[in-house]
Amino acid sequence: MTVWLVGAGPGDPELLTVRAARLIAAADVIVHDALVGDGVLALVPDGVELIDVGKRPGSAVPQEEISALLVELGQQGKRVVRLKGGDPFVFGRGGEEALALRAADIDFEVVPGVTSVVSAPMAGGVPVTHRGVSAAFTVVTGHRRADEPDIDWRSLANVGGTIVILMGVSQRASIAAELIAGGLDPTTPVAAIHSATTDDESVIRCELGGLGTTEVESPCVIVVGPVAAFDLRSAHDHGIPLDHLL
Amino acid sequence: MTVWLVGAGPGDPELLTVRAARLIAAADVIVHDALVGDGVLALVPDGVELIDVGKRPGSAVPQEEISALLVELGQQGKRVVRLKGGDPFVFGRGGEEALALRAADIDFEVVPGVTSVVSAPMAGGVPVTHRGVSAAFTVVTGHRRADEPDIDWRSLANVGGTIVILMGVSQRASIAAELIAGGLDPTTPVAAIHSATTDDESVIRCELGGLGTTEVESPCVIVVGPVAAFDLRSAHDHGIPLDHLL
Repeated sequence: MTVWLVGAGPGDPELLTVRAARLIAAADVIVHDALVGDGVLALVPDGVELIDVGKRPGSAVPQEEISALLVELGQQGKRVVRLKGGDPFVFGRGGEEALALRAADIDFEVVPGVTSVVSAPMAGGVPVTHRGVSAAFTVVTGHRRADEPDIDWRSLANVGGTIVILMGVSQRASIAAELIAGGLDPTTPVAAIHSATTDDESVIRCELGGLGTTEVESPCVIVVGPVAAFDLRSAHDHGIPLDHLL
Repeated sequence: MTVWLVGAGPGDPELLTVRAARLIAAADVIVHDALVGDGVLALVPDGVELIDVGKRPGSAVPQEEISALLVELGQQGKRVVRLKGGDPFVFGRGGEEALALRAADIDFEVVPGVTSVVSAPMAGGVPVTHRGVSAAFTVVTGHRRADEPDIDWRSLANVGGTIVILMGVSQRASIAAELIAGGLDPTTPVAAIHSATTDDESVIRCELGGLGTTEVESPCVIVVGPVAAFDLRSAHDHGIPLDHLL
């Protein structure tokens, strides 16, 4: 009778919300995308129908079809859990699915998740905000469609906070160039965190000027700003002394 | 032997992570701030020492004292859970506590939480991003100290995405004025979500030009931008027709 649009967090099943874990355990059918962690999918009980609508480049299930599928499953009276990597409303297109369900008069509920915007940098030892270093952060996607509103990179470069880029691997050279053209120092620290909180996790650090020629693998969260010099997982940070921040 | 710096999410105990719930159940001592929901604190088992370092205006425990307390408790070999509203690194000063623990050679782990940046707007029916409406969002705090880096509000007004303001109730008039001076339309939709996901939750909507004279109560997340016209909880949205976004 209800469709739940549920954030699955960054990958580690321990970072599911209690509510998400309960909903997974009680679902009739789970519709998930490619960014939902294997460890999360391993929690799905036997007998639950699992539908992969993973949107990988070249093999995407169009969003309209996913929305139509959710409406159809909802109309069948099933307990439908739509599981999304991270959070449904952080570039998760949860709003579109919610509008489609509302238009079809199907009850739905949106359940937030731990977003990779914050948790992926954290996994790399990077706080997106830190007193005296960054009092704001902007989240952008590098994978924007032609019909998306423009981002004014020059203005973004001048806001004065951390920049967190999702889905930016293929566009990283042009994004870095635009931010530098906008006034950011080419030596601005960058941390790129791949597959945060999973067994594949890795962290690469560079300067903004070198981001375009640094090997970076998707899925990846790219952090640009002084906070990217932190490595709170280890005894030493990168590039800038931080003791004065204590 | 270890101190865990743990995000407690927006308030609803169902929005704790599985890991946070486990850590709370196994703690010797829990050090929490004012934004941790009552429902979350109700999960703390009997016999666990509960220390409230809630930083309310006029009765703050200074951050240096909190960090020193965590070091002291960690040195006593206790299982210490430092519970923070939302996420430890989203204006949660978790980085400072991590640096203090590292300097004292105490093991620590940071556990992300569901941030109110995304979940509070969601509770009000507002997606912080939506295809065709907003492809970026900037998170700022209205409660900045004199030693914080400046935010260039004029640049922020020109980035072209959603603006999410935390701890901005007392500064809302001046923030709105600066954003309008920077070029944002005074009719830009605003949604202010108070005590999201708790029994006290309420949502107020206005236009940016009227934000300064609209009654808004702390704690509150203020969303500025076209997405604030959405109300996905109800059958109708506010101010702008959204059917074309389906």
